[in-house]
Amino acid sequence: MFIDRLIEKIKLTNNPSVIGLDPRIEFIPEHIMQQANADSETVTGAIGKAFFEFNRQIIDAIADIVPCVKPQLACYEAIGLPGIQAFEQTVRYAKERGLLVIADGKRNDIGSSAEGYAQGFFSRHAFVCDALTVNPYLGYDGIEPFIKSCREHNTGIFILAKTSNPSSGQLQDLLLQSGETVAEKVAALIHDWGQPLIGKYHYSSVGAVVGATYPVQAATLRAIMPQAYILVPGYGAQGGSAKDIAPNFNKDGLGAIVNASRSIMLAYQSKHWCGQFSELQFAAAARAEALRMRDDINAVLAVGC
Amino acid sequence: MFIDRLIEKIKLTNNPSVIGLDPRIEFIPEHIMQQANADSETVTGAIGKAFFEFNRQIIDAIADIVPCVKPQLACYEAIGLPGIQAFEQTVRYAKERGLLVIADGKRNDIGSSAEGYAQGFFSRHAFVCDALTVNPYLGYDGIEPFIKSCREHNTGIFILAKTSNPSSGQLQDLLLQSGETVAEKVAALIHDWGQPLIGKYHYSSVGAVVGATYPVQAATLRAIMPQAYILVPGYGAQGGSAKDIAPNFNKDGLGAIVNASRSIMLAYQSKHWCGQFSELQFAAAARAEALRMRDDINAVLAVGC
Repeated sequence: MFIDRLIEKIKLTNNPSVIGLDPRIEFIPEHIMQQANADSETVTGAIGKAFFEFNRQIIDAIADIVPCVKPQLACYEAIGLPGIQAFEQTVRYAKERGLLVIADGKRNDIGSSAEGYAQGFFSRHAFVCDALTVNPYLGYDGIEPFIKSCREHNTGIFILAKTSNPSSGQLQDLLLQSGETVAEKVAALIHDWGQPLIGKYHYSSVGAVVGATYPVQAATLRAIMPQAYILVPGYGAQGGSAKDIAPNFNKDGLGAIVNASRSIMLAYQSKHWCGQFSELQFAAAARAEALRMRDDINAVLAVGC
Repeated sequence: MFIDRLIEKIKLTNNPSVIGLDPRIEFIPEHIMQQANADSETVTGAIGKAFFEFNRQIIDAIADIVPCVKPQLACYEAIGLPGIQAFEQTVRYAKERGLLVIADGKRNDIGSSAEGYAQGFFSRHAFVCDALTVNPYLGYDGIEPFIKSCREHNTGIFILAKTSNPSSGQLQDLLLQSGETVAEKVAALIHDWGQPLIGKYHYSSVGAVVGATYPVQAATLRAIMPQAYILVPGYGAQGGSAKDIAPNFNKDGLGAIVNASRSIMLAYQSKHWCGQFSELQFAAAARAEALRMRDDINAVLAVGC
């Protein structure tokens, strides 16, 4: 079961974090872009090649210390077909290096189309990811095909409950007549929907997304869906600290996995590492920052226990 | 402005409908699949080729009688990279034939990623669609990058308000403490968000999605967002009739565009056309059904005026 594989990887690496592989042209070191330009006939072809090479070097630098990577589909779709090709290569390479892959696509549709997405991200004929983020706005019959596919392919989903962005409250914090917020109602549904996929560590392969930027809401949502593994975006560049992500964990020290993207990919430019890494050493810097992040999170969890 | 182009195409064809290009392997006529198998080295490569050839023939059959087509991204992602290639070819070919293209992707993410999706679907370096469906769950800062991009690229978005699937009410019909449903609140936001993109016919390039299967809610939502063009899925195979879609239109006879997918793609199998078309004639059947649908909708609108 996906969730058991994830938990075992987290235990093995002693690292409840996931590295976002979200390349953008302005993040790519010059030497990689130059080589890609030399090897390509089109502008987007070159960018796609550069995206994969950038990801490949980061994956090589972190594969032994993190359990999981999370490519953001929007970064790849942004450049069309060559981007999707880079996404496919990235997924395949990360899996070869033993990493689990969560595709961050926030996909959603009516049942027959949700089936298509599930097939696309989970079947061995398409992108072969381990998990996918999905959006709950369509209700259960838009989620069920993913759950069926998770059972068949040994994969997982993370359903958006409370997102990390500033205006997430515009819908997600609205108060319902039942007294709950919309996000709390979604959390209750996630809890129910996940029951058929509970693994041996008492967590479900139907997880949730709760932004690091909302620690108060996180504590409430954690209690509503105790068996949902929570994917926590928003640490680092978006402003969430290790203390902010603590409420997403359970007392067993499990229950959440924290994502950072920009702070890892651009670690060589960060003030944490003032001038220690050149642009050529971006992957070494990513490793150093991934280790710092791991220790930062584990320190807060140790205090909490 | 996108919405003016759409309205002018609807007036020109006297047809407020959009044809869904949602290929699935089980929809593809045998002669197309056989040819694609002969021309391809991989299973998914053959399916991708067959998808495009199937779409191409349908596009040729309907290009002069409909304003618009709507490829469902899930159908293409389902087979991985060759599917995305078929999607790209389909968009390009439909535009060459003078059709507007609404990509049905229901994309959504935080601002920086929403920017990536907007670039991917609207910029000339990627998929070059005319419009994209998007999901509102993240609130305004996940929508704003699309609106900016719509202004820059002369494109549009259709934001999910009330979807056509059976469990859409699980979230969308929940009653808020304000007395509105979630879908009504979303409709009010769509109305506000669309104000900067109102065109010369007093409609906005920020439209909405309201399923044909919920005519009662449609009347309420129509009133909340009078200037939003409504994309209405669910006619035909999903059970919505022409009478059901009438509440989505305004008194000016404009304001909505109705989608049908399976009932057009598989018209040659339909009881409406009992045996008149062989599998080889699937495209001619699609044309006949598209004309029947046009007349069915226009008849109801004529009675309403």
